[in-house]
Order: sequence, then C-alpha cells, then structure tokens
Amino acid sequence: MQTAVYRLGMAHPGDVSALAAAIDAGRIDPARIVAVIGKTEGNGGVNDFTRGYFTQSLFALLAERIGASAAALAARIPCVLSGGTEGVLSPHYVVFVREPGAASAPGPRLAIGVAFSGPTPYEDIGRAAHAHAVAACVRAAMQDAGLERAADVAFVQVKAPVLTGPRVQAALARGGTVATTDANRSMALARAAGAFGVALALGEIDETAVRDDALLRDFAVRSDRASISSGVEIVANEVVVLGNSAAWGGALAIACRPMQDALDIGGVVAALADLGIAAAPQVAAPDRDRVAAVLVKCEPDRRGAIRGNRHTMLDDTDINAQRHIRGAVGGLVAGVIGDGRIFVSGGAEHQGPDGGGLVAVIARQD
Amino acid sequence: MQTAVYRLGMAHPGDVSALAAAIDAGRIDPARIVAVIGKTEGNGGVNDFTRGYFTQSLFALLAERIGASAAALAARIPCVLSGGTEGVLSPHYVVFVREPGAASAPGPRLAIGVAFSGPTPYEDIGRAAHAHAVAACVRAAMQDAGLERAADVAFVQVKAPVLTGPRVQAALARGGTVATTDANRSMALARAAGAFGVALALGEIDETAVRDDALLRDFAVRSDRASISSGVEIVANEVVVLGNSAAWGGALAIACRPMQDALDIGGVVAALADLGIAAAPQVAAPDRDRVAAVLVKCEPDRRGAIRGNRHTMLDDTDINAQRHIRGAVGGLVAGVIGDGRIFVSGGAEHQGPDGGGLVAVIARQD
Amino acid sequence: MQTAVYRLGMAHPGDVSALAAAIDAGRIDPARIVAVIGKTEGNGGVNDFTRGYFTQSLFALLAERIGASAAALAARIPCVLSGGTEGVLSPHYVVFVREPGAASAPGPRLAIGVAFSGPTPYEDIGRAAHAHAVAACVRAAMQDAGLERAADVAFVQVKAPVLTGPRVQAALARGGTVATTDANRSMALARAAGAFGVALALGEIDETAVRDDALLRDFAVRSDRASISSGVEIVANEVVVLGNSAAWGGALAIACRPMQDALDIGGVVAALADLGIAAAPQVAAPDRDRVAAVLVKCEPDRRGAIRGNRHTMLDDTDINAQRHIRGAVGGLVAGVIGDGRIFVSGGAEHQGPDGGGLVAVIARQD
Amino acid sequence: MQTAVYRLGMAHPGDVSALAAAIDAGRIDPARIVAVIGKTEGNGGVNDFTRGYFTQSLFALLAERIGASAAALAARIPCVLSGGTEGVLSPHYVVFVREPGAASAPGPRLAIGVAFSGPTPYEDIGRAAHAHAVAACVRAAMQDAGLERAADVAFVQVKAPVLTGPRVQAALARGGTVATTDANRSMALARAAGAFGVALALGEIDETAVRDDALLRDFAVRSDRASISSGVEIVANEVVVLGNSAAWGGALAIACRPMQDALDIGGVVAALADLGIAAAPQVAAPDRDRVAAVLVKCEPDRRGAIRGNRHTMLDDTDINAQRHIRGAVGGLVAGVIGDGRIFVSGGAEHQGPDGGGLVAVIARQD
Repeated sequence: MQTAVYRLGMAHPGDVSALAAAIDAGRIDPARIVAVIGKTEGNGGVNDFTRGYFTQSLFALLAERIGASAAALAARIPCVLSGGTEGVLSPHYVVFVREPGAASAPGPRLAIGVAFSGPTPYEDIGRAAHAHAVAACVRAAMQDAGLERAADVAFVQVKAPVLTGPRVQAALARGGTVATTDANRSMALARAAGAFGVALALGEIDETAVRDDALLRDFAVRSDRASISSGVEIVANEVVVLGNSAAWGGALAIACRPMQDALDIGGVVAALADLGIAAAPQVAAPDRDRVAAVLVKCEPDRRGAIRGNRHTMLDDTDINAQRHIRGAVGGLVAGVIGDGRIFVSGGAEHQGPDGGGLVAVIARQD
Repeated sequence: MQTAVYRLGMAHPGDVSALAAAIDAGRIDPARIVAVIGKTEGNGGVNDFTRGYFTQSLFALLAERIGASAAALAARIPCVLSGGTEGVLSPHYVVFVREPGAASAPGPRLAIGVAFSGPTPYEDIGRAAHAHAVAACVRAAMQDAGLERAADVAFVQVKAPVLTGPRVQAALARGGTVATTDANRSMALARAAGAFGVALALGEIDETAVRDDALLRDFAVRSDRASISSGVEIVANEVVVLGNSAAWGGALAIACRPMQDALDIGGVVAALADLGIAAAPQVAAPDRDRVAAVLVKCEPDRRGAIRGNRHTMLDDTDINAQRHIRGAVGGLVAGVIGDGRIFVSGGAEHQGPDGGGLVAVIARQD
Repeated sequence: MQTAVYRLGMAHPGDVSALAAAIDAGRIDPARIVAVIGKTEGNGGVNDFTRGYFTQSLFALLAERIGASAAALAARIPCVLSGGTEGVLSPHYVVFVREPGAASAPGPRLAIGVAFSGPTPYEDIGRAAHAHAVAACVRAAMQDAGLERAADVAFVQVKAPVLTGPRVQAALARGGTVATTDANRSMALARAAGAFGVALALGEIDETAVRDDALLRDFAVRSDRASISSGVEIVANEVVVLGNSAAWGGALAIACRPMQDALDIGGVVAALADLGIAAAPQVAAPDRDRVAAVLVKCEPDRRGAIRGNRHTMLDDTDINAQRHIRGAVGGLVAGVIGDGRIFVSGGAEHQGPDGGGLVAVIARQD
Repeated sequence: MQTAVYRLGMAHPGDVSALAAAIDAGRIDPARIVAVIGKTEGNGGVNDFTRGYFTQSLFALLAERIGASAAALAARIPCVLSGGTEGVLSPHYVVFVREPGAASAPGPRLAIGVAFSGPTPYEDIGRAAHAHAVAACVRAAMQDAGLERAADVAFVQVKAPVLTGPRVQAALARGGTVATTDANRSMALARAAGAFGVALALGEIDETAVRDDALLRDFAVRSDRASISSGVEIVANEVVVLGNSAAWGGALAIACRPMQDALDIGGVVAALADLGIAAAPQVAAPDRDRVAAVLVKCEPDRRGAIRGNRHTMLDDTDINAQRHIRGAVGGLVAGVIGDGRIFVSGGAEHQGPDGGGLVAVIARQD
C-alpha cells in the first residue's frame, strides 16, 4: 500500500470542482479516498457553516461518482475541516488516497488509517468518557493503518462533536447533565477530551490522568501528536492516524514537532529538517514542491502573555481568540514554507506544549 | 547629538505609567522626547479610539511633568499610533529621545527629525495636494535631523488625517468636493497620499508622478522607506524621519528593507543582517536584547492571491482586511525576532512593493 | 389560481427538513413551488456562504422529490435569500406555492409571478445596463402573475449578481471595465441597479432617470415597492413580483408601505392596518396567526445621523453597517408583530425613502 | 432639592465639549453634578476602552472647572457608562444635577442619591460577597437620596468591577480563588452579583437567596429595578439610586417597567403611560420633548429562542451576543420614542424577567 496526497484549492466552500476534475482525468480513484482534511473560510466557531457546506458538496460529488449514498460515504471517510483562513491562509483541502504499491523505499513511508466512533452522547461531550471513546477510535485507526507501535504514529487528527443549544436542551430534557451550557466552551472541552484520548492511545499518559476535572485545567497532560477539531456538524468522533511505516510504499513521509509557543519558528524548521528540507530562512522553490501538506495546531496563550509580553487575544470582544492565533501562527508557518496552503487549526488545548501547539509536514522523500 | 529609544509596555490604552516611572527615575528627560510611535489594541479603523485615548494620556503626563500645555506639546511631538494588536502582537510604544552626545561611533548612527504640516483642508485629503503637503513636511523633518542626503534616510513615518462623516459634510457644506465619502476608503487614500509625498521628498519619484488619479491606482509609484498611518484623531500631517548619520552619536542604527509580499521572511532576515544580527531561524537571546524597535508595513494583496493561492482577506465582512494582514505579518516578523513588540501597520499602499510592504529594525551596534 | 405561503424554520442553513416534512405530508406539492424567500444566519456580506448552502440544500431536496435536476429547478424557481439574523431575527424561509383556486374573495387576493434574466455580464453589474435588464425581468414576472397594471404590484423582490475578485479579473482580462473593484461596493451598486430597474418597470421613474452616475448618488430616484438583495452566488437576476388581483383566489393579501427612516414604526403599523390588523402596541395573538410573512428593507442612514442624532453604523470597523441596521429595524418590526420571523434585508439604496426603506406584510383576509 | 437632567451628545468618546459649553454658559453648575450615565461607541466588552476614555475626559474637564483633582471627583461622582451604540443608538450621556428647589409639585418628583463601595477584592467579584457589598452601597445611596421606602425607588444603576487576566493572576498569586478565569464570564457574574445586591436592598429577595451557586443559575431570583453594568476600568462598585419623592421638587419623574422578553413593546408603552405619555404607535413630537432620559436593560434569551423561534445570538462567533441584543432592543425602544438617544445596556441577568429586562423613562410632568 501507499498513500497519495492531493492538495486542492477551492473557490468557495461549496466548490469541489478541483476534485471532480482530478477524478474525471483519472488522477484520483474516488473509491480509494480514505480521508479529507481541509480549511474552509468560515469563522471557525459554532456558527461556521462553511464546514457543513463543503462536506455536503464533497459527499454529493463522491456519491455521484462512486455510486453510493452520501450518508454511507460520510460514515466511512473522515472529512475533517477547520474553519478560518485568517490572514495569508488559503482555503484548500488535502485528499488522502490509499493506493496499491509495494514497500519500496529506503526508509519508512507515509501510512494512513481511519476510524469512526458511534455517536457521542451529549452528556459525554467534553468529559472523560469522551476521551475514552476517542482513544478506542485511535486504536482502531492504528489497526486500520497497520501501525502497531505508537512510536510510528506521527500525527492523529480527530474531529469531535460539540454541544449546541438544542443538544444541551435535549440532554437536560432527558434528565442528563452537560459539561457546559456555553457553546464556545464546549468546543474547547471537546478538543481537550480528544487530546486526552489520543494521548492515552499513544501511551503519552495513562488512564489515571483521564479525569473530568483535568480537562482544560491540568495542562501538563498533553499529546504532542494530537490535532483536534471540534464542530457542530457531527455527532460521532472521526479519527485519521498518520505515521511512517516500512510496510508502506510511495514517496511520502511525515514529520511532526511540538511548538513551544506561538513564536516557535524553530519547531517549524525542525519538522522540515526531519524530512531533509532546509528553510534558510524560507524553503527554496524546488523543495517547496516536495511539500504535500502542512498541518498546524496552535493556541492563544491562556496566561495572557507570550514570552513576557502581553497579548490581547483573550479579551477581544470583536475577534475570537482562535481567529487571532490562527492568523498569527499561520503567517509564521506560511512564511517559512513560502505557501499559504497551511492547515492551521486553533484550539490546541492539551495538544503540544501549553500555549504552543505542534506542526506536521508531509513531504516527498526523493 | 544621539538618539535614545525606549520601548515600553502598556496595560491598556490609557496606561502611560511605564513612561512616568522612567521619567521619575531620571532615565528619560521628558523635555527631550521628540517622537512616540506605538501600537494600541483598538481595531485600527475609523472608530478606533484607543489612539486618541493613549494620545490624551501621553500628553497629559508630559504636560504635567514638563509644565507646558498638552496642546502645545502635541503640536511639536509627533505621536504616531497604529491601532490593532492582532495575534501575537503586544501593545507597546517606542519613545524617541534626542540627547546630547558626540559622534563617536565607527559607523553612522541613528538620526531623528520631526515636522508638522498645518491642518490639511478636508478637500485635499487623499489627493495630490495632500502628497505635496507631506513632501514639504518630510523635507522639514530631514532638515531637523540634519540629514541632507535622501540616501541617508532609512525610514519615514507619517501620520495623516482622514475624512469622517462630519468632515465630509463640512467640506460639502462650504461648496468643496472630497476624494471620497467612504470613511474606510479615505483612510487608504490618505495613506497613499502620504506615500507619494515621502517618495517625492526622497527622490524615489518625480513631481509628474504625483497625480490624483495615480493614488490607489498606479502601484508602480511607491516609496520603499515610507510608513503611513492615517487616523480620525488628527487634522495635520505629522512626520518622523529616521536615518543613519556620521554626525550623530550613540549606539543605535537603523536598517530598512522592502518585503516583496506577505510571505517575504527574507526581507526581515535581510534587515536584521544589515545590522549584523543573525536569525537562524530566530534571533538568539543576546542579539534579541540589541533590538530596540521593529517597524513594519504590510498589505492584504489587492489581487486576492499570494503567490497564486487565493486569500480571503478582502471579501471578509466579519474581520477588516487590515486586521487580517497585521495579524499574519506580525506573526511572521515576531517569530523571526522572538518578540511580539512589533509595530505592524496595515495599509501599505504605495509603501514598498505592491502586495508587500517594508520592515525596519533599530538595533544596538556594539 | 391562488397563492399559498408557508413560513418554515430551519435549524441551520443546510436544514430543509421542515419543507421535506410538509412535502411528505402532502401539504405542499413541490412541483407547484414558484419561489422561496428566506433569511439565513450568515453575515450577509460577500463571504456569506449560508445562502449558497441553503440553496444547494433546497434544490437537492426539490430535485429528488420532483425528479428534475437541481440546476433546472434553480433556473426557474427564484430562491432569494438574505443573510444575517441579527438580534431577535429568526432564520426562516417563506415558500410560495401557486395552487389551483377560483377567484372567490370579496377583495383582490395575493398574486405571484416570477422571471429570470440571462446572466448579467460582469461589465454591466451595478450600472444602468443592469437596471434595464432588471426592468425587463420585472415586466416578465408581472406577465407571469397576470398583473397588467403597475398599481396592482405591491412588492418586487429581486436578487442581483455582484462583482467578486475573480469576476473583476475576468472582466478586466477580456478588456472590459467594471463599475467598481470593491466587492462590498459592488453589492450596493447591484442593489441600486435593481431598484432603478423596478422603479422603471413600475413607472415610478422614466428612462431618462436611469443613468450610471445616478446610482448611489441621486437618492431622489427610488422605488417604494422594490426590495433588492445581491449576492455572490448567482450570475443572473431573479425576480419575484407580488401583488393583489381580483383574478386570484385564496385568503391572502399583501400590503406595502415605505418607512421614512429607521425609527418609522408608523410605516409598520400602517402596512398592518391596510390588511385590517391592529397593533396597539403589538399585534394581538389571534391576529398574529393571520400574518403569513413580513418583508422589510432598511438602510443605515448614509448622512450619519437619524433625526439629528449621530449614529455610528457607517464608521464601524468591527460590525458591518448592514448588520447594524438589520438588527435595529428587525428589532422594531419584530416587536410590533410579536414574532422574530421577519425577512429584513439591509441595503435599501433607492428602495423607499433615503435613509429609510419599506415594509410589506402578507396576511390572511378573513 | 430637585434633580435636573441634561442629555448631551458627543462626537467621539473623548468629547465632553457639550458639557463644557453648558458649564461655560452657566446652565450647569459643575459642583452640583452628582452622577453621569452614558453610552459610548465601543464594543461593550472587556476590551472596550471608550468608557475609560470618556471617563478620563469627563473628570479632566470637571477637575479643571471645579478646581479639584480628577481622582477625588471620580471617587464621589458615579460615571456609569455602557459601551455599544449598535444600530440606531446614538452616543450620549445624561448628567444628573442636584439643585436647590422646593417640593412644589402636585406629585412626587425625581430624587437621586449616590454611593461608592470600597474596592471589591478580586476574589469576591461575581460572588455572593460582591452582592452584599452592592446591597450596602444601595442602602447608602437611598439614604443619600432621602428615600426611606424601597417602594419609592424606581431604578438603581450599578457599575461593578470585573475580572481581567492581570486581576485573576493577582488573586491567584496571593493564594486566592476567583469566580472564573474567563473575562467575558466575569462580566456576567459581576452583573449578576449586582442584581442580587439591589434585589436584597430593595426587599425583592431575602438574604437566603444570595448564594454563590444561584448567580447565573437561579433566574427566578431577580430585581425588576436593577440595571447593572460591569467594566474593566473600575475597582469599586458605584451606585445611583433614582426614585420619586414628595420631598423633592422640580418637574421630572421616573417610571420603570419590566420587559418580559426582547419583543415586549408593551413594557415600553406602559412605562411611558405611567408618566402620562402616549405612544400610538410613536411618542408625538411635543411629548417627545418631555422625555429627558430612557434607560433600558436587555438580554439575549439564554434558552436560544424567543417566543418559540430560534435566535442566533448565543452561537455567533462574529458578533458578541450583547451587541446583538442591544441593537435589537435599542431599535425597538428608539422606534417607540422616536429618538436614538437610549441608554441600552446588555447583560440583564437577574435584572427583570429572564430573557427580558426592564425600561425606565424620566420625563417632565407638566
């Protein structure tokens, strides 16, 4: 097996014409698509419907070309979208395709596996039970990828459901309790639960660390390979595991490094260096073509300062803090790579160092 | 003479306590302050009152300590503020002090001069007449700095007045015409006029290029050393000229480089290199202490794409395009320097390359 | 013939389940739907994709239930959406169905007709040529409704295409010119052109008034029965004409009144009174059930004041002026009706009195 | 004694020229000013500095005219500002002046009293202890007004301090705990505590109801006469009590009514009727001149719907919910009055009916 990665642009969140063209040209076999990760141009918050619009458009296309129902496809192909293309970021999506191929390379190559949980009860969202559901899902995705060792896993992308007004009402109406009634806070709690789940599955923490009261509180608990998105448009967890394996072929490999804070350009350069790519200060044109995808998590430092200087992201009533940090870290990473097609997802609670995050790069190894 | 530069933090836009403390401790002689350049945490648009609030607070302090009226001080000390500390940017202000000192250094050292125009008639704002007024003001500031050659000027900061609803009404009521009735557009036109004025004064363009219909249209007309802010709170142009001169002493020097686009990390690294500071990839801690101020202009590429990839800044009804670009370029420059105290001003029309901007660094040369 | 009107809620912009349920229950014959007018919860600006998302969802449903292609249906059923449910406004859509029925009533009853133009060349958008295209389209829709006299037309809803970055580039690339390169301004110009077109078709103005340089300039030119939306998601003009006719049956009638300014509660009460409904101060519960739909146009007064008091809508960099005014006028009209399901569309340039707008009510006459 | 009320406009948040002119003309004796309540055009959130800017400007003026220090004046004259002039609202401030005057009227007349608490410990903010501090302050203000009976109190305006990042850090550093680390939530908790305090002082609730865990939870606990603002710029509670008393003279009286929800136009009309003013549907011009001030509290219904129709205020990442509701209710009240100079303050938790709020009118009784 080998993993092919296609990075495609979109003119608006309902535009999947680039994928349609690739399918029509025979470059992509739609039946072999295993996951899609993308950035759409909404606000990235509870009321960001660009994710749902793109998802509907994507599965309508695939349903038509594959001859299956959109619902059936959506239940087996994770489509993980992060809203918000602040600043220099460019709306795009990355299509992961699992193709036949021999393990041919001098080193391990990009492996991919996916899994879905069942629907998360609204009462569980953003709690320890949510983390356990995600952990089980990660283990299933590792098995799907044939990745037996947690050490071979480089990056885990999770999409987790959140609470909305109606979901809170539904839970309360049936006598349940919810982790929060604040929709924005539920997005953060769901991300935290996802990170705990990944850390547990990868052995970065043990079971005793997974407690309701540690979520969004004990930031020493973390995964350095987890990227969690949360959104209103789903009810189940979706997991994509990416790693490097000698059992996989193709030309691609993946590297992931933590970012210590939002200014940690060193983390970006290190991830590139892991793949043999120099940035001095920017990735040069020929190497830039080797880069197939860049995936970043970041976070507005909750302590209100970065390296001792006050930032204003957390107290801004006009612009959501996640929009702020995506724009800033996106600007930094895009400047190093020389390309705005960076998947930058805000909300890195428990994902990488507190106040920082992580950066993963997929690149050709030839 | 020599120029001392103090970079101070603020807890909110009315907080000048750091300056008060420096005056009280005898570190700064308030009578020798010649200019203040700062970033406050407003939205940077027409209705950003954090600039006015800081200005009122600053001159109230100086009036009290110097024993002069606030109005008289405001008429001789340019206070150039840019609103908007998006992302990792940190609210701060840079106080320029002209102190006695011999020309002692092995190379030229930071020189500063300032000038004010009279009030700009509302009918002139954002037009060629505005550019000519700025050019005259730049020449006066060069003279104030003792900088005879345009080549010795590294950076010119201008604050230019804009049109507001009442100003438009006033002009129309007296039978005049205005460049635009759109307040946001008037901010852009005022910046364009300022850039034309600097370019003219520095010999980057000649008089025939200064035409109403070239403003915001002919982007080949530009200055690579101009940084223009525009704001509702002033009626006259204010100019600060910074350069390097063998006639000045002290330890500081300034370098300025154009940025080709919002991803041009190379421009930032080059400006640092001009001052003997390496960034590989980030300025190391000892060198970071040498950096006294960083001043950046940037712009959301008006063609809707950066290096071929679509950006969404110009079509965003939720977040102003200038806020977007400040956050992204601020994130990039702050990442290279390792410090969020970067003066990043959006609106670089005709200031540096089209779609890019420029970056200036002031640093100790010892 | 008679017109039935169904006002349906949505849980999000992709939710057409209420319509699906009504079709499944036999209450609505999908083949008889002639128009949909609705409010979705986006920002109402250029980058509001909730309109496209709802449209895609609507036509996917209708295509499936009718057995026609979504594209064919979209080319004959106007779907006019206004983004932005600020304040108390509730996302909803109004489905207009043309049913068989005898002219039975004591008075004239609600008549409806629709029409589409061909694609508007990008060079024409927001210009006099655009107005003429809309006028022709209004005449066609009147014919479709069997409304021969302009006096019988109460309300004309138009959806007009706008300029976007790519459209501007396309026009310029082929040697054309465009009315503006500013996407937000093109939305205003397109609305203005639509209003001129309606006014021309209804005889409120004559041909000599339709000039490029009158658009967004001569606000004495206006229609008191036009409501124009503009959006990025369409390329042709879509027109829905609503009137009262003795040739139509059913129970509904429509009334429309101008609003002199954003505080003109009297206009709302007058439109209700035209239909025999009292509001003292609020429509009482039984009468409230008679109200089938409320359609409002409004505008932030471009002179910066309302009845002599300064407003801040036009100079706000944080919240778009159209969002401001929709929230305020929506709050007023919803308070009189006692219901947040009000279609309130910002951007009333040349639609009703300058600085005001208009309000239409459809209600049962029994 | 009698209370005079002056409603003044401002061109920007630092503009107190209207008050300066009134003082200079001898219309207002600055030494007799007892309170100022106003609306400035910021965002109304944690990072709204227009309140601080206006306050600084106001006390600088008064200090200069009275010959006292600004700090001393700020410690005895409550200046209660609400940020946010969404929609049709107009920036303005209401100056309350206590003048000599005999009790002359046929009915009770407007009485005013003020009081300040000491600084609220950060650990107390938004907790029961905060409510008790406010209650004591209300009782002091009643005494200042000579209002012995709670029944004679019509309206109590409180300004309460909130938590910010630095305040949270300070409390935690000294071993304290805080009610929340979320700045926006602390604004809501501070308002809740203030409402509990007023309700307790006015006998609307008893002491057992004042519990930490009832704040923002038990919405049956409420005051129908409390209006609480909270803001970052103060550290102590400030209270203004307004009532009607036979011991006071002058021409003014005050009425206050609860609003059941954001559509409750009836509450507005009832408050006017209490003062003998008709609105049918709008206050007619002569009566409009009798209106001296209008003060409103409102709230985005936390259950996500108003009269069964979904609203989108709580899930909006682009516009803060308080901005939404101020715009909507401001539009409604301004439409009834026919004037945009309405003090509308969001955040009516425990102030009036849940999901609604209250409206007070001060008007001439002749």
